Amino acid sequence: MPNKPSTSTGSFNNPLTANRRNLIAVLDQANRIASMTSLDDLLDQMLELMIEVSEGEAGTLYLLDQAAGELVFKVVKGEKSSPEFKGLRIRQDQGIVGAAVQQRELIVIEDIAKDPRWYRDMDPEKTAHLRNVITLPLLLQGNPIGAVQIFNFVHAELELLQVLGNRMASEVDKVMLLDKSHRTNQRLQALVDILGRVGATLDSEQLLRLLAELATDLMEAEKSSVMLAERQGQEMMFFFDENGKDSISPGQRHGFLARSACAAPLRARPITVGKSRIAREERVIGNLMVLNKKSGVFDAEDTQLLEILANHASTVLQIAGLYGEANELFLDFIKVLAATIDAKDPYTRGHSQRVSDISVAIAQEMGLSADLVHDIQIGSLLHDIGKIGVPDTIITKPDPLTSEEFEQMKRHPTIGLRIMSQVHLLSNVLPAISEHHERVDGSGYPLGLHGEQISQIGLIVSVADVFDAMTTNRPYRQAVEIDLVFDHLHENIGRLYDRRCVEALIKTVIQANPRNPISS
Amino acid sequence: MPNKPSTSTGSFNNPLTANRRNLIAVLDQANRIASMTSLDDLLDQMLELMIEVSEGEAGTLYLLDQAAGELVFKVVKGEKSSPEFKGLRIRQDQGIVGAAVQQRELIVIEDIAKDPRWYRDMDPEKTAHLRNVITLPLLLQGNPIGAVQIFNFVHAELELLQVLGNRMASEVDKVMLLDKSHRTNQRLQALVDILGRVGATLDSEQLLRLLAELATDLMEAEKSSVMLAERQGQEMMFFFDENGKDSISPGQRHGFLARSACAAPLRARPITVGKSRIAREERVIGNLMVLNKKSGVFDAEDTQLLEILANHASTVLQIAGLYGEANELFLDFIKVLAATIDAKDPYTRGHSQRVSDISVAIAQEMGLSADLVHDIQIGSLLHDIGKIGVPDTIITKPDPLTSEEFEQMKRHPTIGLRIMSQVHLLSNVLPAISEHHERVDGSGYPLGLHGEQISQIGLIVSVADVFDAMTTNRPYRQAVEIDLVFDHLHENIGRLYDRRCVEALIKTVIQANPRNPISS
Repeated sequence: MPNKPSTSTGSFNNPLTANRRNLIAVLDQANRIASMTSLDDLLDQMLELMIEVSEGEAGTLYLLDQAAGELVFKVVKGEKSSPEFKGLRIRQDQGIVGAAVQQRELIVIEDIAKDPRWYRDMDPEKTAHLRNVITLPLLLQGNPIGAVQIFNFVHAELELLQVLGNRMASEVDKVMLLDKSHRTNQRLQALVDILGRVGATLDSEQLLRLLAELATDLMEAEKSSVMLAERQGQEMMFFFDENGKDSISPGQRHGFLARSACAAPLRARPITVGKSRIAREERVIGNLMVLNKKSGVFDAEDTQLLEILANHASTVLQIAGLYGEANELFLDFIKVLAATIDAKDPYTRGHSQRVSDISVAIAQEMGLSADLVHDIQIGSLLHDIGKIGVPDTIITKPDPLTSEEFEQMKRHPTIGLRIMSQVHLLSNVLPAISEHHERVDGSGYPLGLHGEQISQIGLIVSVADVFDAMTTNRPYRQAVEIDLVFDHLHENIGRLYDRRCVEALIKTVIQANPRNPISS
Repeated sequence: MPNKPSTSTGSFNNPLTANRRNLIAVLDQANRIASMTSLDDLLDQMLELMIEVSEGEAGTLYLLDQAAGELVFKVVKGEKSSPEFKGLRIRQDQGIVGAAVQQRELIVIEDIAKDPRWYRDMDPEKTAHLRNVITLPLLLQGNPIGAVQIFNFVHAELELLQVLGNRMASEVDKVMLLDKSHRTNQRLQALVDILGRVGATLDSEQLLRLLAELATDLMEAEKSSVMLAERQGQEMMFFFDENGKDSISPGQRHGFLARSACAAPLRARPITVGKSRIAREERVIGNLMVLNKKSGVFDAEDTQLLEILANHASTVLQIAGLYGEANELFLDFIKVLAATIDAKDPYTRGHSQRVSDISVAIAQEMGLSADLVHDIQIGSLLHDIGKIGVPDTIITKPDPLTSEEFEQMKRHPTIGLRIMSQVHLLSNVLPAISEHHERVDGSGYPLGLHGEQISQIGLIVSVADVFDAMTTNRPYRQAVEIDLVFDHLHENIGRLYDRRCVEALIKTVIQANPRNPISS
């Protein structure tokens, strides 16, 4: 309702004719309808008003689906109307409606039955009562966005209908804009969450699969793919989607029919750390593509959101790659170093790697956290690093050591601790080095620690170390039979070794190789 | 213009009265105006139409700035109007306009001069010709978004004006929505670029400063800050803004007056690599805050964009931190290892670290790329790693070596190469190990390479190695005077050493310590 003018100042009111007053009431009603924010309500009320103005019996309202080139039945009104038509689609050039939309002109037909454009294939019983029809294209800045039909009208208020129609087209556009704005907000919120999730794994295959999955959702697509060029020799492409990883040429698409597509490049960018430029130039390393928007076509906003996602993922991939390399470098380095120290004595060749493998297996069997398993892997590889400070003559001596030489040999945990405690970030793994010769009853060295004084990592590595020593040949004896080793470990639970560690060790060794547990 | 009905089917036309036809023309004009996508044009034309309908002499249009609680003069029209009022602001409850907006009612005043609400403080000459005024609030779903005043009107077409006003309010809202949608697109595009840029540096201080800078732009704020809690002991906060880094309590804000603020947390999230969970739990590590939106206040979209930026930056920060740690671990480890090997012989204590420092200085002086400098740093630290395979008795022997012992000693580049070539990611640095005893004239070992056969990294490390050996005490001689060392290097350019390397070395040594170049 319009606001009443201030009564105190009403004397200038220009009296309107009844006709004009009536018209103003229609417009006021149109304003009320226009304030609706639900598209369905808006369309429903708008058709109602137009039927009323024309004193019609029924009406239908169509919206144009531009992408499909079809008119969609949105509202069907009137006593004898057929609501089952709702949702039906016709070609945008079909029938009287199609003609009105194509010509952008209002069409009035006095006798429907005589018009060749009337749908002949519709149920005659349901349309037999329809005598005449006004067909009105809904124009937005001159372009059709739909149409209205009013059946069995009394007044053909064509100018008014067109004014109302155009007015309503503008409001439909606004509601759609509001919807889009609302939808944009929802998608931005989804992006907030997604940008938290891409980065949850630094494993590039997992990351790319997650990326394809999240892109499909965000972009309302049927399918996504991530293609990644191999680092060297750009020709091999990897293709990730919900089915996993495939190394195929990008042309092959498993017969999937692509209606619409939107793609964004994955780029490695120049990166600096301090003054160092660790990545030199920008280059495309792959692409992220979504296929077949579920409704409509991909628009500029889709492209932007996909690019944001692609840029985020590119950065994560690139830095995760650097992290992976730095980790690999360190791990490879200490493996090679440990192997070099082991190899000074032919009898201990490969010892540190085996102790590490066994220690990791024990830790996993015990259900320790991945962090701790990682520390145990590093620590066990380095457990004999202190031998670097023991004279080669002692390490490589084939004959039994003198007691003085043995005392020197026994200093390797202490030497290792002294050296490696200088590496700040290794602090968690040091007990593997310093405690792998300690024993539960305090009979070990260098400190003679008891039971709980020995850390978990120390307990695990000590058992793994004994196991490997006993199951390999030594200058002073042959490798011991596996069953005898198990017996020895079992008998010394609580005296030399920790129960949980021994049990976990035996379990993993048997699981790994049920018939002949020791293959090395 | 409305579309003319199809002439062939016009017989149902209901003849309109002239008055009604005239009104339809006004509405049609309103539709035309409504199709404008420029807010200025829309407001201008809309005011024009209302003045025309009322046969007024002048008019003004105000929009409400909700955040400021002010009405802004947007359009001033009419022959005697005063365009200099444009842009002026009045309180939303001030004057007749304020009254109409507050009451949400149309107010008609026959004699302005007698109304106490008329602005007394305006230039009397400019307003003396104004006799009467219609003041019309522009209502959108019942809420005022502005107002229109029409001066010296002839007809007070109040219902029509209100219908037009409400219609136009809806259109203003739509244009603003369109503007916002357009603006959102621009900001998403900006975000695409920003997400490419945050990640260009892995140095956390640089990254945080860049983040504050980019957030200020994206959020149209006056100022941004990034606060980061220290990893241990959450109490110390660091504050980054365009002025740099500050370690202050978050309360102190340099007397900066915050009108409005929008903040998003920076979160470290759980991260896995393969089966390893390398970051355990989600925790807030800081926050990103923008202050004082330049126009208006921060809205939901601002919060979302800031969160997207914060989530991206958090991920980059977190992974960059992991990368930094992995790098630091490796570098610390090889430093400690090299120092341990050096320390077997008291005469070579600290040798590898010094050779590395000198090699890096030479490489930087020569203007080599940061990548190459990094390789040289690693390679030079490891150049004597092969001594791990030379018997301690030879390395630690205080007396001169026999020629057989010397031959064994000369195997260390080959041994080092054999060991380190097993570490795939060290391939670039291997020449530092294998070629640091090669000489330009082919007189070096182990291969007797000539000139260009020796890699740049080999040439650099060999000069740095000789320099450190000559300037430190050895069992067989005291440290050589620096000038004599320079002489030796100079004299042997092109014979033993590379010219560029020698010149760069001398330059950096002199620059580093002009009076006493060697401080070690």
